[in-house]
Amino acid sequence: MKHIKISDIEDMSKIYRLNLINSVTGYKSAHLIGSQTSKGNTNLAIFSSVVHLGSNPALIGFIIRPTTVPRHTYSNIKATGTFTLNAISKKQIADAHHTSAKYPENISEFDKTNLEIEKKNDWNAPYVKKAPIQMGCRYQNEYHINENDTIMIVASIEHLYISESLLLEDGWVQLDKGDIITINGLDGYAAPQLLERFPYARPKA
Amino acid sequence: MKHIKISDIEDMSKIYRLNLINSVTGYKSAHLIGSQTSKGNTNLAIFSSVVHLGSNPALIGFIIRPTTVPRHTYSNIKATGTFTLNAISKKQIADAHHTSAKYPENISEFDKTNLEIEKKNDWNAPYVKKAPIQMGCRYQNEYHINENDTIMIVASIEHLYISESLLLEDGWVQLDKGDIITINGLDGYAAPQLLERFPYARPKA
Repeated sequence: MKHIKISDIEDMSKIYRLNLINSVTGYKSAHLIGSQTSKGNTNLAIFSSVVHLGSNPALIGFIIRPTTVPRHTYSNIKATGTFTLNAISKKQIADAHHTSAKYPENISEFDKTNLEIEKKNDWNAPYVKKAPIQMGCRYQNEYHINENDTIMIVASIEHLYISESLLLEDGWVQLDKGDIITINGLDGYAAPQLLERFPYARPKA
Repeated sequence: MKHIKISDIEDMSKIYRLNLINSVTGYKSAHLIGSQTSKGNTNLAIFSSVVHLGSNPALIGFIIRPTTVPRHTYSNIKATGTFTLNAISKKQIADAHHTSAKYPENISEFDKTNLEIEKKNDWNAPYVKKAPIQMGCRYQNEYHINENDTIMIVASIEHLYISESLLLEDGWVQLDKGDIITINGLDGYAAPQLLERFPYARPKA
């Protein structure tokens, strides 16, 4: 095992540290967040920090860095109160990654990739067509993380669209049936295959 | 696509809703968190909510529900200020899942599974032997999430141990080389394989 201490991390080049620290925390969820300005200009951006906060009510969180560079997703969510979360399938990874390029606010990532807008339910944000899971989310709150000036957005799930073949009888959604991918570090895309589902764990005697 | 509305989610049975909402947010990171009481009694628990918060300083976050059931991990972290994060490999999934069984505080999950304690660096928390990535973390802060009475713990990475074969020249850690797994929902374990790493995305003309 290679041992890296906090002082080594501090002394690393920026790129090496970004690659390392972004990948050691393990596989990340992969989502395209769709949003729009109050005038209706659409935006699409890839996020790897979406986390389940609770099921009742159905709440998610994700991390955003608004203080360093312009973050259209953040300003759109603040303006409309709504956004979409879209799972990413194998076929979409090149386009999904390209949404991380820095376009000006008046350019939509939908126009620069093969990803297509799907509008439904009068939701004030675009869904991504052919995403195997789509969620219409509503902003609830935000928490400023003082330690590094990031923000955790907390949002509720108000609409949920799931490709029928993924949804099992007991409510569990089998993600590999939708070829849904996961992220390794900043720029690695990986496809999981289910190994096993275990029963509820009970203490051994 | 099946359409599920917020009112449908509210009306579901508890188990169906837990399965559904825990899986629709996509693949989750998988970690064993090692901790100990001030007297040195060890504890090991599986978490699927660890998220990268930032690289400089190297910070992670995770979600804990301290208000509903006894959470030994939380009280141990508050008592010692330290814990370990251990990646989970394919061979460890049955034991890792078993750490979610509710044992009393004086019973160590290390005694109820084949997972073994590794002590190093005088760290006040046990590492998991043979975990392909091990991190010694220090508590920094916590944020109460008012929307559902959960807590986000923020911690710094102070020691990092990586199996040499996973660490590439540019600092990127290739997780599938360590057979590191990811979690689907509450109880599904999946093994990813790398599809592709993309270069830094730049705007198209």
